[in-house]
Amino acid sequence: MSSERLIYLPLGGAGEIGMNAYVYGYGAPDKERFILVDLGVTFPDMDGTPGVDLILPDITWLRERADRLDAVFITHAHEDHVGAVAHFFDDLKAPIYARAFTANIARGKLAEFGISETAVRTVSAWPEQVTAGPFTVGFLPISHSIPESAALVIDTPDGRVIHSGDFKLDATPVVGEPFDPDLWAEVSKGGVKALICDSTNVFSPDPGRSEASVGPAIEELVAAAPGMVVATTFASNVARVKTLAEAGQRAGRSIVLMGRAMRRMIEAAQETGVLSGFPTVVSAEAAQDIPRENLMLLVTGSQGERRAASAQLARGKYQGLEMKEGDLFLFSSKTIPGNERGVIRIMNAFSEKGVDVVDDSTGHYHVSGHANRPDIERLHDIVRPQIVIPMHGEHRHLREHAKLATARGMQGVVAVNGMMMDLSGNAPTVAEYVETGRTYLDGSVKIGALDGVVRDRIRMALNGHVTVTVILDESDEPLGDPWCDIMGLAETGGSGTLLVEVLEEDLGQFLGRAKGKTLKDDDKLEEEMRRIVRKTAQDEIGKKPEVTVVISRMR
Amino acid sequence: MSSERLIYLPLGGAGEIGMNAYVYGYGAPDKERFILVDLGVTFPDMDGTPGVDLILPDITWLRERADRLDAVFITHAHEDHVGAVAHFFDDLKAPIYARAFTANIARGKLAEFGISETAVRTVSAWPEQVTAGPFTVGFLPISHSIPESAALVIDTPDGRVIHSGDFKLDATPVVGEPFDPDLWAEVSKGGVKALICDSTNVFSPDPGRSEASVGPAIEELVAAAPGMVVATTFASNVARVKTLAEAGQRAGRSIVLMGRAMRRMIEAAQETGVLSGFPTVVSAEAAQDIPRENLMLLVTGSQGERRAASAQLARGKYQGLEMKEGDLFLFSSKTIPGNERGVIRIMNAFSEKGVDVVDDSTGHYHVSGHANRPDIERLHDIVRPQIVIPMHGEHRHLREHAKLATARGMQGVVAVNGMMMDLSGNAPTVAEYVETGRTYLDGSVKIGALDGVVRDRIRMALNGHVTVTVILDESDEPLGDPWCDIMGLAETGGSGTLLVEVLEEDLGQFLGRAKGKTLKDDDKLEEEMRRIVRKTAQDEIGKKPEVTVVISRMR
Repeated sequence: MSSERLIYLPLGGAGEIGMNAYVYGYGAPDKERFILVDLGVTFPDMDGTPGVDLILPDITWLRERADRLDAVFITHAHEDHVGAVAHFFDDLKAPIYARAFTANIARGKLAEFGISETAVRTVSAWPEQVTAGPFTVGFLPISHSIPESAALVIDTPDGRVIHSGDFKLDATPVVGEPFDPDLWAEVSKGGVKALICDSTNVFSPDPGRSEASVGPAIEELVAAAPGMVVATTFASNVARVKTLAEAGQRAGRSIVLMGRAMRRMIEAAQETGVLSGFPTVVSAEAAQDIPRENLMLLVTGSQGERRAASAQLARGKYQGLEMKEGDLFLFSSKTIPGNERGVIRIMNAFSEKGVDVVDDSTGHYHVSGHANRPDIERLHDIVRPQIVIPMHGEHRHLREHAKLATARGMQGVVAVNGMMMDLSGNAPTVAEYVETGRTYLDGSVKIGALDGVVRDRIRMALNGHVTVTVILDESDEPLGDPWCDIMGLAETGGSGTLLVEVLEEDLGQFLGRAKGKTLKDDDKLEEEMRRIVRKTAQDEIGKKPEVTVVISRMR
Repeated sequence: MSSERLIYLPLGGAGEIGMNAYVYGYGAPDKERFILVDLGVTFPDMDGTPGVDLILPDITWLRERADRLDAVFITHAHEDHVGAVAHFFDDLKAPIYARAFTANIARGKLAEFGISETAVRTVSAWPEQVTAGPFTVGFLPISHSIPESAALVIDTPDGRVIHSGDFKLDATPVVGEPFDPDLWAEVSKGGVKALICDSTNVFSPDPGRSEASVGPAIEELVAAAPGMVVATTFASNVARVKTLAEAGQRAGRSIVLMGRAMRRMIEAAQETGVLSGFPTVVSAEAAQDIPRENLMLLVTGSQGERRAASAQLARGKYQGLEMKEGDLFLFSSKTIPGNERGVIRIMNAFSEKGVDVVDDSTGHYHVSGHANRPDIERLHDIVRPQIVIPMHGEHRHLREHAKLATARGMQGVVAVNGMMMDLSGNAPTVAEYVETGRTYLDGSVKIGALDGVVRDRIRMALNGHVTVTVILDESDEPLGDPWCDIMGLAETGGSGTLLVEVLEEDLGQFLGRAKGKTLKDDDKLEEEMRRIVRKTAQDEIGKKPEVTVVISRMR
């Protein structure tokens, strides 16, 4: 027995917010049986990942051990927890367990890849448990900003581990189960070896506010609005969408849901019974016959996404509806760091139309779905684990959370992606460092973050690109002049002559001077010509472009 | 006299925060004499302007009328107000007027371009006035986050106009003149036709706080720190740098200034006499011999700029100094929207080193340099202008500010870049729409924002690039196979064969089938081959790349 061990290995989500994927294992070293908790994505941006469609965790390590993986458990249906299930299903081929709402969303994702819905098995809330290899796992309800979020109670031969999932402590969550401290105390009372715990809001000093607290302010705002009201929030925040819709309904407005994600989430919530009594909605088409002061649109795009409904409405007509002077647009959401520019762009576009924009700067129209520092402390106090391993956070969140736990008498441990922790003994130790990273979905292909593909795209974006073509005859003499094409570079530089002409002139002179040995050597020739292009471009326009040299030989 | 008019024309800064450039004119239509207030820059980002070095206003309109420009007035030395003076000096060739500190900074910029320092004329504060064509202009001191900020009192044949510049109402600004409400009342008492007024913080509901208010909290934090303390702020906030340095000095620490901009600003403030009693600083070299608990570094890079001192320290050693576990890094600054990712990157890098990072989330370590809504109202009340034209703001700020003015009995007018306002009559009217925009400094070359150069770079970043080379013989028959090079694209796609091989195969087949008419026609051939590359790449890897086709003919 002493040769067996309990391990915890984050492959994503520990050292970043997004792309969650946590492995638990039990058994003799290199013979452990595994379960995976969550399999999410993160989103690309122009800064670091231009042109990339989606960022997935690099699960190479787990794929190579897929025969030892008994199950995948999904805590809730946010993209950063469930978004990669379909992309990696064929690699892992393990059954996926989730509660009904989450399972509904996961099945939708698998269906897009032609994967059978039987791959996902619906599990009821605690006390139901699933056995997966050496683990017995139950879904313990906890409040968050999406229906049916659950912590996982993972019973192992080495004791009970609780994986919090994303959570807040909400006694009045509008949709779904309130946080039940008694149930959590009951589950924890036999002793909890480790709490693997959400760290997102560890720097927020005040207790978190309930989802129910935003209702009155929203209702007041909507009731007072003279024109059309359009509100956006995270589509998956079904409780918020309900609060918004009810505010509209009470103000005598017809509700329109716009944006695929918004409709999909409400549909899933209704199908699985977590949402009832949602106001009747009308189609965008029917809305065109309703006076604007009697309309309320609930739309996707709270993060300023260019293709979402909010951005379309900011640009002009969308599905036949258009915002006008005197209308109101409400961001019932916060802007995720990095998305500010897109959100501000929309706000200004609405301002130009004379639309009044209200956001959450007052704190009245949005609450976070994550536990703030005092809430985290409260959960620690209820569970009273031996070890706290912070997850779902950037390094600074994990470190702060671990310090918090340590200061309060528990063992706080920072374990970032790739750090395999052995939790068997009295103190957790690092068993191994596993290579992790990011996989890019780029068009229809998966590429490694370090493959250099995106690096080359960034370089072209920063430096522009020059194509050089040269043809050499049978005796390795240049046939005609070299030819240059530029892309993403100023046409004319300091000399006042076209850049391509200056480049071709300098390359032509070089070829005229070049020795036979150089002319015979493709690598040497390419290297020299690239150097000349970069030097000449630097002199002419102050930039060193990326260069493709094409050498054709007539032999 | 009735044929003459007073005009206001923003060329930059009205509809954005940054790149300020405001024209005032007086005279018969198309014969007005002009002055320009401020000539600033704005900063590029990867989202919209990858590879661009600096963004300047498009001043084509003014350049074409430069013979009618009598003077340039600079309100203060922030980059978004003074940053473009050297870049456009040869286009405008007008004398530049500024107060001593601002003039010092402006001369430094001109010197880098080899322009004589006599181009900048130092003006004392009000009541000194400068005559420029039909205008008489004085610099009225007002507090902001840089020394010697000034509003401009512009006397015109049509009455007095006040251009606020950037401002806050600070009775204890630490460095420079406190806001003097009596002086402002005195200047305004004869009646003010128009107040052109900073709008940045119009959405901030509470009165702004004084620069002096951050001193005690900073002092307490620094005094309690066990290790090395490193603090960053905007280099130009000389008052803050002084506050930080004094906190260090009182805690028995030696002060090191790191980063060129930081040293330059302190130097300029000392040279011009606006800063005195600044603690003695030691060099980074000398600091290596001082125990870390006796050191305080003041560094550039509050916005997470990759090449600034803060980012270098986050990565490792900088000028021989390195941050370690137990050290403290203070952001005595706010993150400008859009810069969040860079700042967070640094925070996490420090977290990995065990450095404690303190930012302004508590509101204790930074105050804004701009007037909040109640402060704006207070200035309106002191000046009591007939017209308020909001400037220095995005559209949403301008609109809100104009609404505020109108609600309080003044004429609030939104005038965005390019809107020439005629202020002569009782109500301002739009005289003309002038084409404005952005000019990119790209390497050493200025290019227009709409030239397509940066658009091509963005496309390469999103889509990757393929070079196709084909050689045709004297009778327009393909000589060998077409050749493809890819950059920024996955090497292998869905078929499992190398992407270039699939492309070359498809292009080869096309050339084999192509009619003589197509093969003879460069444009047609290029178009077809581009189409095939995009179609094949879409099938293979799900992306449509940018394509350069090079056709060489042996004739």
